[in-house]
Amino acid sequence: MPAPRINSIVESCLHSDDLARSTRFYRDDIGLRLLISNERMSVLSVADKQVLLLFLRDGTHSPVPTPGGLIPPHGGSGDLHLAFAIAAADFDAWENHLISRGIPIESKVRWPEGGQSIYFRDPDNHLIELATPGLWEIY
Amino acid sequence: MPAPRINSIVESCLHSDDLARSTRFYRDDIGLRLLISNERMSVLSVADKQVLLLFLRDGTHSPVPTPGGLIPPHGGSGDLHLAFAIAAADFDAWENHLISRGIPIESKVRWPEGGQSIYFRDPDNHLIELATPGLWEIY
Repeated sequence: MPAPRINSIVESCLHSDDLARSTRFYRDDIGLRLLISNERMSVLSVADKQVLLLFLRDGTHSPVPTPGGLIPPHGGSGDLHLAFAIAAADFDAWENHLISRGIPIESKVRWPEGGQSIYFRDPDNHLIELATPGLWEIY
Repeated sequence: MPAPRINSIVESCLHSDDLARSTRFYRDDIGLRLLISNERMSVLSVADKQVLLLFLRDGTHSPVPTPGGLIPPHGGSGDLHLAFAIAAADFDAWENHLISRGIPIESKVRWPEGGQSIYFRDPDNHLIELATPGLWEIY
């Protein structure tokens, strides 16, 4: 029997040693809208259709009871990676924006299908990419 | 100056000790379409608008040269988390599907805003969630 439908990835997660610093980075430098901020996590809206969850590192290893059920434990370390989609027309503006915010550009890649990516690090050294269409078969 | 626009998170990543096993799980059990599979990574389409990247654990710590530029190093360990969006109407079908595939259901949560989540583990113990709308302000 085929699986029922998956509509999207709605939550992507990073782990941070300093949640306030990381939250400022994604809100003020990257421009995501902060929805929730507490001692355990920050929740930022990505174009009002997905969320980026920033968890305090090692703060998620215990299950979290809620009135509606138990949130299971998880966790992560290392220099994680995620990519944000941007319009091709915004590529140069993003590069200038990163420079103006003092965020070092680690690499730029031009993909065979015509897309372009720009790579930089967030305050926890996670590898963040801004990618224009023309990268994957479906993007 | 405000940041230029972010359109979505287009790449979310997990790390796997056994790429073939993990690829089978996301393709055959979860129903994602496999776009690319090589020794370093598998790329799966999420509703043809995002990709899930599965990386062989510790296989991404060196930069990867491409004709168009250098892909910087990254990596990750731990029991990472991500959530897929599903329709409320598919919640029961998904629960039955997981059971029929022999995937243990670790928890179910009913959220204050009316959404429901079901949690399970992938073969690398990453915490995977299927969530219906009514969870975040924007979902």
